[in-house]
Amino acid sequence: MRPSSRTPAQLRPVRLTRHYTRHAEGSVLVEFGDTKVLCTASVEENVPPFLRGKGQGWVTAEYGMLPRSTGSRMKREAAAGKQSGRTQEIQRLIGRSLRAVVDLAALGERQIVIDCDVIQADGGTRTASITGAFVALTDAINGLIAAGKLEQSPIRQHVAAISVGVYQDTPVLDLDYPEDSDCETDMNVVMTDSGQFIEVQGTAEGVPFSRDEMNALLDLADAGIRELIAAQKAALAA
Amino acid sequence: MRPSSRTPAQLRPVRLTRHYTRHAEGSVLVEFGDTKVLCTASVEENVPPFLRGKGQGWVTAEYGMLPRSTGSRMKREAAAGKQSGRTQEIQRLIGRSLRAVVDLAALGERQIVIDCDVIQADGGTRTASITGAFVALTDAINGLIAAGKLEQSPIRQHVAAISVGVYQDTPVLDLDYPEDSDCETDMNVVMTDSGQFIEVQGTAEGVPFSRDEMNALLDLADAGIRELIAAQKAALAA
Amino acid sequence: MRPSSRTPAQLRPVRLTRHYTRHAEGSVLVEFGDTKVLCTASVEENVPPFLRGKGQGWVTAEYGMLPRSTGSRMKREAAAGKQSGRTQEIQRLIGRSLRAVVDLAALGERQIVIDCDVIQADGGTRTASITGAFVALTDAINGLIAAGKLEQSPIRQHVAAISVGVYQDTPVLDLDYPEDSDCETDMNVVMTDSGQFIEVQGTAEGVPFSRDEMNALLDLADAGIRELIAAQKAALAA
Amino acid sequence: MRPSSRTPAQLRPVRLTRHYTRHAEGSVLVEFGDTKVLCTASVEENVPPFLRGKGQGWVTAEYGMLPRSTGSRMKREAAAGKQSGRTQEIQRLIGRSLRAVVDLAALGERQIVIDCDVIQADGGTRTASITGAFVALTDAINGLIAAGKLEQSPIRQHVAAISVGVYQDTPVLDLDYPEDSDCETDMNVVMTDSGQFIEVQGTAEGVPFSRDEMNALLDLADAGIRELIAAQKAALAA
Amino acid sequence: MRPSSRTPAQLRPVRLTRHYTRHAEGSVLVEFGDTKVLCTASVEENVPPFLRGKGQGWVTAEYGMLPRSTGSRMKREAAAGKQSGRTQEIQRLIGRSLRAVVDLAALGERQIVIDCDVIQADGGTRTASITGAFVALTDAINGLIAAGKLEQSPIRQHVAAISVGVYQDTPVLDLDYPEDSDCETDMNVVMTDSGQFIEVQGTAEGVPFSRDEMNALLDLADAGIRELIAAQKAALAA
Amino acid sequence: MRPSSRTPAQLRPVRLTRHYTRHAEGSVLVEFGDTKVLCTASVEENVPPFLRGKGQGWVTAEYGMLPRSTGSRMKREAAAGKQSGRTQEIQRLIGRSLRAVVDLAALGERQIVIDCDVIQADGGTRTASITGAFVALTDAINGLIAAGKLEQSPIRQHVAAISVGVYQDTPVLDLDYPEDSDCETDMNVVMTDSGQFIEVQGTAEGVPFSRDEMNALLDLADAGIRELIAAQKAALAA
Repeated sequence: MRPSSRTPAQLRPVRLTRHYTRHAEGSVLVEFGDTKVLCTASVEENVPPFLRGKGQGWVTAEYGMLPRSTGSRMKREAAAGKQSGRTQEIQRLIGRSLRAVVDLAALGERQIVIDCDVIQADGGTRTASITGAFVALTDAINGLIAAGKLEQSPIRQHVAAISVGVYQDTPVLDLDYPEDSDCETDMNVVMTDSGQFIEVQGTAEGVPFSRDEMNALLDLADAGIRELIAAQKAALAA
Repeated sequence: MRPSSRTPAQLRPVRLTRHYTRHAEGSVLVEFGDTKVLCTASVEENVPPFLRGKGQGWVTAEYGMLPRSTGSRMKREAAAGKQSGRTQEIQRLIGRSLRAVVDLAALGERQIVIDCDVIQADGGTRTASITGAFVALTDAINGLIAAGKLEQSPIRQHVAAISVGVYQDTPVLDLDYPEDSDCETDMNVVMTDSGQFIEVQGTAEGVPFSRDEMNALLDLADAGIRELIAAQKAALAA
Repeated sequence: MRPSSRTPAQLRPVRLTRHYTRHAEGSVLVEFGDTKVLCTASVEENVPPFLRGKGQGWVTAEYGMLPRSTGSRMKREAAAGKQSGRTQEIQRLIGRSLRAVVDLAALGERQIVIDCDVIQADGGTRTASITGAFVALTDAINGLIAAGKLEQSPIRQHVAAISVGVYQDTPVLDLDYPEDSDCETDMNVVMTDSGQFIEVQGTAEGVPFSRDEMNALLDLADAGIRELIAAQKAALAA
Repeated sequence: MRPSSRTPAQLRPVRLTRHYTRHAEGSVLVEFGDTKVLCTASVEENVPPFLRGKGQGWVTAEYGMLPRSTGSRMKREAAAGKQSGRTQEIQRLIGRSLRAVVDLAALGERQIVIDCDVIQADGGTRTASITGAFVALTDAINGLIAAGKLEQSPIRQHVAAISVGVYQDTPVLDLDYPEDSDCETDMNVVMTDSGQFIEVQGTAEGVPFSRDEMNALLDLADAGIRELIAAQKAALAA
Repeated sequence: MRPSSRTPAQLRPVRLTRHYTRHAEGSVLVEFGDTKVLCTASVEENVPPFLRGKGQGWVTAEYGMLPRSTGSRMKREAAAGKQSGRTQEIQRLIGRSLRAVVDLAALGERQIVIDCDVIQADGGTRTASITGAFVALTDAINGLIAAGKLEQSPIRQHVAAISVGVYQDTPVLDLDYPEDSDCETDMNVVMTDSGQFIEVQGTAEGVPFSRDEMNALLDLADAGIRELIAAQKAALAA
Repeated sequence: MRPSSRTPAQLRPVRLTRHYTRHAEGSVLVEFGDTKVLCTASVEENVPPFLRGKGQGWVTAEYGMLPRSTGSRMKREAAAGKQSGRTQEIQRLIGRSLRAVVDLAALGERQIVIDCDVIQADGGTRTASITGAFVALTDAINGLIAAGKLEQSPIRQHVAAISVGVYQDTPVLDLDYPEDSDCETDMNVVMTDSGQFIEVQGTAEGVPFSRDEMNALLDLADAGIRELIAAQKAALAA
């Protein structure tokens, strides 16, 4: 039995609220149950130094948690003077996942910076971030098209992400915090709407996992991500 | 004529939403028009090193802006590796303002940390922060009383804050961003519900200001803060 | 009774020693009693990046305390690897105060950097810094005129600063360290020789202050700053 | 055809040289072809603060590259003042992989720090690090047993790691640098000698990968890791 | 001919002003001509962590230059966020030189921190610092004796320092800035009043130097340091 | 009697292994007994900002110790976020020593960066670094000549370095770690093959040293450096 009474293959309620704040070119509040992340997309008409003059654009991401998004207060990274290894891992993952579905040459010499800031955390903040960030990115790119700066979208496919894990010997979808803290295996899966993988990151938290368990987890993730991509499409059509 | 069509003595619509997130002991979203700040209060059952064993508590604050809370994206302070001078000034101001209305000895050997994170900025983030932080602090302290950890509240008075300024030669209340960027004098006033000052910070942005202008600004602030304290009381009574 | 036996409206002895060191374009040792600050002005024939090509100059300030300028040794900020929030607040205040009396367009595309280093502290280091820095700035600008780089001075008015506070229920002028550590209200006032305000920063250290107290403090500051500006003029005429 | 002329399932020559330096409790030079990493294990008779008094030990890792281990010189992280996100990701991975095969309670209240320093890089430094670090860790633990500080080994299983990827549409084992820079999918697999997974990290570098490709890669990794564990056993028996 | 018209073996005028500031236990302004350094000694009744409980004291030093102590303004190290390699080298040298003449066990479990801050620089700041710091240290220790905290002085000998160098093929004593910038060899010598060496640091600035040149420089230094120690004794007797 | 049973004037076995790693333009493992340092030389076709357009090149050095090169593990400087004062002193010394024998104008507008990384430490790492770095630098420069980028070598002379010290009242050559930790005087000498000094750095570790002791130490160093330069020549001829 899951603490939330969900069935093993059941996502938490997913909400994608576009235009959540008014300044950013894309601004989406993504909610996976009690996990709430604000994803903004900022268009900058220049590229980082390593890309100057190469005729292509860039998509990158930064991630942060509000100090009291969690059950006990975390030290503010700006006050600590550096981002933790976990923060850097997550923001690198978000950036790679988005770049994998964007034709950077077609984007032109501009950069889109995605900021994912966790307002409230209950497990799965990185997968919620990727899922919401894709919608914010799409809004920003549609804005460029509307402004005549791009002729057509450089986005090739939808991308979304979900966590899966073995909790009390059962493979389950979309771990919340109580499950995440107590599971044997934890896997984050990033997938496109053609059902192919962008990233698979599985970690044994104590007990190593077998090939069979891995397959069961990937099956769950596949179904979950199809639901998430449907939610993205519904939000973008609204 | 103010860009927002407000009268000189008119506040923007003020909203104080309690229990905005679920983990913190106090969690308030404060809105002054389009300025939105999430204020959380975290109770920690210890005090900073300089107060250990002195039989008193502490209230402190940290402040941050989400990178895209503003019109153009700001560099994330956690990535830059340090907080700006402006950030430090503001968080010191918030902390001092709250401590001025709390009996720290009566709070006992515990610390309450206030985090003010700007979700969307349109001028006046520091005054909105103080106004919202007071409500979050009160909720946290009421929680301590309800849990039997405090017998009565160490809060002596309400505190709220507002900005005033001389905009196109006219003293006006509660500057929004277009006014703030273009005003001659800018003053932040922090006041208690007995109408006394905690802080007055007036700055000439180009043209020095006279004693008469200062008095006109203080009159505006006095009336504005009374409205804000009424809003705090209404929110806490809800 | 004040610890120093001064009357409430009495400044400490003020001394402004020009040409205190020989390398800087302006170099002034300012003394307010036992508070001694070395203020140097350095002319640089370029402007910070955000002003390049805008046809105007810049005046900025940095502040520091020698580790043993105080009663007990303070950690050296260079060794600690960062400037404290207090340091940043003070140097921002000094910079704003000086810029408020300089016509930056008339200064041309150059920067004047003011360094205020506290040799010995006994309260009032920020107000002494502003008062001395103005003289160093004037010397540097007169040097530019003498060298034929400027035709006339871009300085519009004198600026000086003083602290006032409520000490043992009495408003007093120019707080020294024993008063500063033990006063109820502390206010720093920056004023021009036309008697107008550049900055007013009042803080309740425990007991909030009334409008009447504020007016009494501003009266004291007004008289004190007139004396300081007379001292600046005498020093510059010497 | 692979640049190195290897067959798709062929590892580079693997060498594990124990006692490579003389101070560390475990010191192993691991070579995967031209990739050379020095792995040392240091035993410390205390644990990090978050584990004090919990009756268990800890295993952690740090990773670094000599500035000229690579084709063009990399900036020295000590001079830059921080470790890159990549460095942090890798050292977190090494630490997790080793902890997954150690009974931390049986280790007692001590910490073993693994340092993996890349002397020469040609792709696969993180998988070589894990493979060599396990041997260094084993030597350090055997030293504790020999010294009578542990009765039996807290190591439950061998662990080793290898990279696999899709290079020119073909799944291949143990990517060297020319392959790594030009492959479509890159996966790092960490496995035990019972053939179970500790970590699986697959990343699409441009083209998403299918479930079939993933299965082919995992098959290659499984066989490669069996060879590596055999090499570990041979080295430890020598 | 030296730029200052001094003879090769002639020191600049040396002045040692005790009690230069009033808070520190020792406070000496040392002047070697236009080089002016404020040396303070602060007594702290504890020792650094690595010495706790070892029954001995410690003497350490920190060094800094005011940003405009030099001909062109140097970046403030506190703002830069770190001390330069040169600063660290100098403060380590000052600390070692003083510790070499103090019986640390006889000092007891306390630390004396020497701060050497350069007010005005004209070459030789490190040697002036050592020479002045010794007098400040002596004053601080005499204060401990006067307060009954020490029975007798743990200082074994005087220590002073001077620079020597080969300038236009001639060995000269006490290089000023014009000589220092243009000399072939530069040597700093730290000596006791028994004529023995604490430190000798010679550096070829372009042309290597011979054993004969080295001997000529050491002869000059020996005579110069005898003069400096006489000046220290005169100052302490005043 | 020396701990190693060496005679006072006896070097440890010296080995210089060229081409130790394959990416760098010069790569030398230098061994002084159990002290092992990897010295690489990297050619960069640009110069640091302060030299741009001045028609000359630059040689600089960085130094580091692997965390477990020593008897007890040292904190990794990249993790600590800064280089120690000792590290900076040593890398500045290496850079100065090499620049003293290179005609920087003849090198052209390029920079050679020397990295000295200590694999295993047993005293004398800085002198081994200089001795090995010279060989790596020579290999890099010979590569430039072979590639037609330089017509002739800008290296004027060989340079090598050795430590000497007074150990148990006897002057000895090439201190190893047990001697270094327990000696009264420690001197590092950097010399050319014409027998002239580049650097002499002598430090009393407790007992000041006399002119006679200094002369005895310099005699030892002179002979030792002649042996080292012979070893350099043999290695380069191999």
